[in-house]
Amino acid sequence: MNKNIIDGKKIALKVSEDIKDKIRAMNRDYNTIPGLAVILIGDNPASLSYVRGKEKACNNVGIFTQTFAMPAESSFESISELILSLNIDERFHGILLQLPLPKHLDSEKLIELIDPQKDVDGLTSENAGLLLLGSPRFVPATPLGVQRLLIEENIKTDGAKILIIGRSNLVGLPLSILLLQKREGANATVTVAHTSTKNIEELSLDSDIVIVASGLPNTLLGRMVKKGSVVIDVGVSRMPDHTKKTGYKLVGDVNFNEVSQIVSKITPVPGGVGPMTIAMLLNNVYLAATFSLKKAN
Amino acid sequence: MNKNIIDGKKIALKVSEDIKDKIRAMNRDYNTIPGLAVILIGDNPASLSYVRGKEKACNNVGIFTQTFAMPAESSFESISELILSLNIDERFHGILLQLPLPKHLDSEKLIELIDPQKDVDGLTSENAGLLLLGSPRFVPATPLGVQRLLIEENIKTDGAKILIIGRSNLVGLPLSILLLQKREGANATVTVAHTSTKNIEELSLDSDIVIVASGLPNTLLGRMVKKGSVVIDVGVSRMPDHTKKTGYKLVGDVNFNEVSQIVSKITPVPGGVGPMTIAMLLNNVYLAATFSLKKAN
Repeated sequence: MNKNIIDGKKIALKVSEDIKDKIRAMNRDYNTIPGLAVILIGDNPASLSYVRGKEKACNNVGIFTQTFAMPAESSFESISELILSLNIDERFHGILLQLPLPKHLDSEKLIELIDPQKDVDGLTSENAGLLLLGSPRFVPATPLGVQRLLIEENIKTDGAKILIIGRSNLVGLPLSILLLQKREGANATVTVAHTSTKNIEELSLDSDIVIVASGLPNTLLGRMVKKGSVVIDVGVSRMPDHTKKTGYKLVGDVNFNEVSQIVSKITPVPGGVGPMTIAMLLNNVYLAATFSLKKAN
Repeated sequence: MNKNIIDGKKIALKVSEDIKDKIRAMNRDYNTIPGLAVILIGDNPASLSYVRGKEKACNNVGIFTQTFAMPAESSFESISELILSLNIDERFHGILLQLPLPKHLDSEKLIELIDPQKDVDGLTSENAGLLLLGSPRFVPATPLGVQRLLIEENIKTDGAKILIIGRSNLVGLPLSILLLQKREGANATVTVAHTSTKNIEELSLDSDIVIVASGLPNTLLGRMVKKGSVVIDVGVSRMPDHTKKTGYKLVGDVNFNEVSQIVSKITPVPGGVGPMTIAMLLNNVYLAATFSLKKAN
């Protein structure tokens, strides 16, 4: 691997090993096994593949996990019943509703039914608000994974100029709040750009770190980045590719070939932010289990 | 008044007159009078003066208001009892806990006790989260007032470069989220700067709109702004002034004399954002009353 490519897999493995040790200790000292319930509605192939990945990662670190699969045509009421029963099921410290849901379902309303103490995706309004108010409990795994990558790679954020391209509720906005806080791996000057931003190039050329979460391939090109800067690519799109067995390949939001020639560090897709997202989910489930122990004592 | 000075008082009056009309209609059609309960702990003179201002503004537009004053040494329990009783008191659609509280009290915990449906200051985690997630219910009055000023003055935010100086939970961070959303009076490219930002001047010189909420006089000087840009001053500090009866004068975060020579529009202190903050509180109380009517029907 080129020396300027950030190996997200390797860092995620390191983080996971650390969580595994902590879980082993929790098991030994408190006889507790962290548990994650995953709710999967319908059979979207990408969702299915994400859920399998999460199950595997949980198994690897000693998190008990169970997937509750329901048909695509499930009613709001039946899913809400499931959520409410999981809220009081002591085997599960975390509950995850795999998104996106089929169109007839109101995702926001269903997410709000999850007990905020078990909302390891950080998507309930209470957990989003705690982040905005500076006392984060569960931060969504992708922004958290990006921050952890920066910390583990010793990339200085303190006083750095960071440009985030993309203003989604799941990545861009929470990440901007996370990186603005006066903490380790943060304290940056943060700009958020989006589809209505004029002249993104002028902003990106002036940034020490560019984080791209636009969902569109080729959002960031070689001529748009400063020599020696750092680029984090949050995007994952499936592009048709007949040379692959699956028929597609994964690409990010960054033109990797161009940008990797210029920057000092860059995450690849796949193998960059993706593995970190899963590792931070494991971290949140472990955290949820520690909260429940604190409540019990 | 110079033609480039934004008359916050006049705009606030216009907004208040509009709210007054709506409240009159609500009274006539639904026999409902919006009510605001204000909790005032101790006798901080600035808090006292803010509360008097809010009472007066409520009276002017037909909002029923009552101030619950408690001594500075009140216990957490006694205040929480008051909040819980106000949560179920149907006379009040909004509850406001005047900050700052005496040091022995945990403000965050007390705020979380307010029913989010009555949290007209938008300070509970649920309401902060709804803003971050893009479905705002109650937005804190100061950020909302800044946005309304921009709208009423026809200052184009769509695609504009906005710099916010200050990252507080009450102003800078919620304002950044508000101005990033794809809505009227928003859709801007937003940068948040703070005490760890290097070379703020470079950023402010490059911005179409600079909003200063640092809490420090002279944060923004003449040489730091672009000709023709717009400056909004959120700061209010009391400076000793022996020529005044009160012994002090109010100053903002902007060096008004210098900056007003260069920009196309600027808010004064006092008479800029301050009156808008009170007007937006009235707006939030009216909104709370409409929510309770919707629930009842």
